[in-house]
Amino acid sequence: MAKSKKSEPIILITNDDDITSPGIRSLVEAVKGLGKVVVVAPDKPQSGMGHAITIGSPLRMNKVNLFGEIEAWQTSGTPVDCVKLAVDKILHRKPDICLSGINHGANHSINVIYSGTMSAAMEASIEGIPSIGFSLLDYRYEADMEPARKIVHKIVSKIMSQPVMDKHLLLNVNIPSVPYKEIKGIKVCKQAYAKYDESFDERIDPQGKRYFWLTGEFKNFDKGKDTDVWALQNNYVSVVPVQFDLTNYTLKKQLEKSKLFK
Amino acid sequence: MAKSKKSEPIILITNDDDITSPGIRSLVEAVKGLGKVVVVAPDKPQSGMGHAITIGSPLRMNKVNLFGEIEAWQTSGTPVDCVKLAVDKILHRKPDICLSGINHGANHSINVIYSGTMSAAMEASIEGIPSIGFSLLDYRYEADMEPARKIVHKIVSKIMSQPVMDKHLLLNVNIPSVPYKEIKGIKVCKQAYAKYDESFDERIDPQGKRYFWLTGEFKNFDKGKDTDVWALQNNYVSVVPVQFDLTNYTLKKQLEKSKLFK
Repeated sequence: MAKSKKSEPIILITNDDDITSPGIRSLVEAVKGLGKVVVVAPDKPQSGMGHAITIGSPLRMNKVNLFGEIEAWQTSGTPVDCVKLAVDKILHRKPDICLSGINHGANHSINVIYSGTMSAAMEASIEGIPSIGFSLLDYRYEADMEPARKIVHKIVSKIMSQPVMDKHLLLNVNIPSVPYKEIKGIKVCKQAYAKYDESFDERIDPQGKRYFWLTGEFKNFDKGKDTDVWALQNNYVSVVPVQFDLTNYTLKKQLEKSKLFK
Repeated sequence: MAKSKKSEPIILITNDDDITSPGIRSLVEAVKGLGKVVVVAPDKPQSGMGHAITIGSPLRMNKVNLFGEIEAWQTSGTPVDCVKLAVDKILHRKPDICLSGINHGANHSINVIYSGTMSAAMEASIEGIPSIGFSLLDYRYEADMEPARKIVHKIVSKIMSQPVMDKHLLLNVNIPSVPYKEIKGIKVCKQAYAKYDESFDERIDPQGKRYFWLTGEFKNFDKGKDTDVWALQNNYVSVVPVQFDLTNYTLKKQLEKSKLFK
């Protein structure tokens, strides 16, 4: 891991649950001995924001005192905005690593697409900053974060202790919600093909008008043992390496062969 | 292309610029002879929304009369919400194809990640609905949409005239902003590695407080002639097949080999 000249590595931390969530506090606690930590995170919940950026309105940013001696800023933007602001306006350089989370709830399989946690990490990766998103399979703010904290420390130490594998390194780490001693290990996986069977709960407001709430049942169509869903079901921590080149090369070849557009 | 029983194929149309934009009107005009068109689109601009979904608040949806005899609904949600609402609450089935756009502005290269236009198309693709996002390289609402309309008609006709290649078929189509006769052809491409060199314009509001506007310069690092950026620079329409499995299989092998997490 490249260090800043004559100084500690800079660890940028963000999330999508908002800067006051227990998850980001646990992430800070887990890695604060490994470098100079700087927190830049949203001032309100941004779950499900995907890779949203704020282009039509201005952003606000304020320094806050939430993590003792650790420098921390809250912004009115999305998780992706936070990474952009951190690099351009706070650090004035790229951090050595960017960590996002710990998200309250799973971001395995197709959730990587919807996840604000992962999109912040992806933004850093596009910028050439090695980056990791962490999620715990427990939505509750009261969840025991101690096992996740240990796992985070282990993974970040390992990644930071060796030469940069890939400047676009991007990992999606999900942690099962079980006691530490029940975690069987850390497994490198592929993203499972799974999706939500969605439906909207239709209701009537006090003015007699219809409104809709999104609900959905998670369905895993992927029976492989090499997927993140399988790993988590079997009490492994799942690590999925993620890329931002979305080209479907198989379909590209097929289309070229078909001469459909000639 | 699978047709609905004893009837025309259903073409779902959405966008991210909002239901009143000239781009979606051009898209409707371009394909209305090819099946039963139903429009479900946001009631306000949603550019840069990425794959955002609305989970923390309810959604509204109203039928509108904007396209003559064509059924149209506007919703308070994101482009992805529109696709979900269309399937569950309007069509009560999957459409035969989903088209998104025509976006006012480019969605080539890394823009696929930030684009609301493409995330709507991706949502449909995840659901097993063949899907295409269209973007014109001209931000202006006054842009001449006629060449784009012809290209859209050509591409959608071709895709619908043959058996379903892939139920998750997802194409990112960008159209250069030149007269029709200057368009050299349609080229199947890969996503260029390009990004924005971002900076924030820092200003002071009337109350004396700082605020920030995102600005950025587009930079293409990909010198290949097989990329969408190259195609567009050379007056080709670019077609990039897109996937939603974000696993980086190269890095996965590398990590497995390294035994870093053993």
